[in-house]
Amino acid sequence: MSARRAYLAGPDVFLDDARAVGAAKVALCARYGFDGVFPLDAGLDLAGLEPFAAGLRISAANEALMRSCDLAVAHLTPFRGPSADAGTVFEVGFMRALGRPVFGYANVDRLYPDRVADGPGGAVASPDGERRDSDGCLVEDFAMADNLMVIGALAGNRLVAAEAAPGLRLRDLTAFERCLAFARDWLDGRPPHTIG
Amino acid sequence: MSARRAYLAGPDVFLDDARAVGAAKVALCARYGFDGVFPLDAGLDLAGLEPFAAGLRISAANEALMRSCDLAVAHLTPFRGPSADAGTVFEVGFMRALGRPVFGYANVDRLYPDRVADGPGGAVASPDGERRDSDGCLVEDFAMADNLMVIGALAGNRLVAAEAAPGLRLRDLTAFERCLAFARDWLDGRPPHTIG
Repeated sequence: MSARRAYLAGPDVFLDDARAVGAAKVALCARYGFDGVFPLDAGLDLAGLEPFAAGLRISAANEALMRSCDLAVAHLTPFRGPSADAGTVFEVGFMRALGRPVFGYANVDRLYPDRVADGPGGAVASPDGERRDSDGCLVEDFAMADNLMVIGALAGNRLVAAEAAPGLRLRDLTAFERCLAFARDWLDGRPPHTIG
Repeated sequence: MSARRAYLAGPDVFLDDARAVGAAKVALCARYGFDGVFPLDAGLDLAGLEPFAAGLRISAANEALMRSCDLAVAHLTPFRGPSADAGTVFEVGFMRALGRPVFGYANVDRLYPDRVADGPGGAVASPDGERRDSDGCLVEDFAMADNLMVIGALAGNRLVAAEAAPGLRLRDLTAFERCLAFARDWLDGRPPHTIG
């Protein structure tokens, strides 16, 4: 059996040493029986393209890459706000709609409403007893680490979370490796398949 | 021909008068020949469920609702950060993977890198000349209003943007209505289909 192709979604591509991080993730994937696919525009010829056209080229390439993969492992550490990186969240939705299993991990172990409360907009109790942000929007509290569409899409509805040191918030691979182990067991039909 | 079913993705569901906003959007949809579908858990029986289980029930219902729709109209105004609401971005990816046309609008007319620079983490020029955020992550600049996966997924790669008054940032329906007009024309094969 050929190795399962795992699309490695995440904001890792924005790190200044993205290629090294990608290589480290792909190497870890191999240990768990996965062929890791790290989405970087390396293979693309973007020469001469205006930025907007280059962005579209990368988008199309990533969509094709996702369709070629059997599963996704999504890095869902909060990114520039209380939720995960938008590109990654898009990709979770994309793979979910294709029926490919999506596994998620985060290097922050904190529930979404608490992340919002930590943030610049904060969150206050309104007269109706609900927590609302500075825009007056309900801060949904489903005891989930991110928006319910994201958590609902994850295999086993399980986000693998492990708190990393602040300086390693986007780089720590502890939760990533645990997520790979969970993905292997889940796909092989071995327990635990439940929220842990 | 029955009206096209349009899934109305957006953070509108978090507003304190979400049902009224939804009704206003559905009424506008009818004017443009769409059967607007506003995702609210109204029809769901969540009684007795723990929050986590209730979240999963809503997620499953919204996924089924999306599958029942012909297109999506996504509200992509920045939400708790420089990107759109995570649930909405998930839904853009989901509908894109299903091959259903996705139309997007925002009540803020500003490019993504500038939104990041406005935010709490800010963005600074690094020694390599690239803009990086306080985590050292590249602030991608593709002259796009949000992550390239989101913009790349929109019909015509066009985000309909109109600047709303600050107090109406999440409520103004000007850009929404323009987006409906664009969606109708696009689906009917009429110009303009290009970025405007």
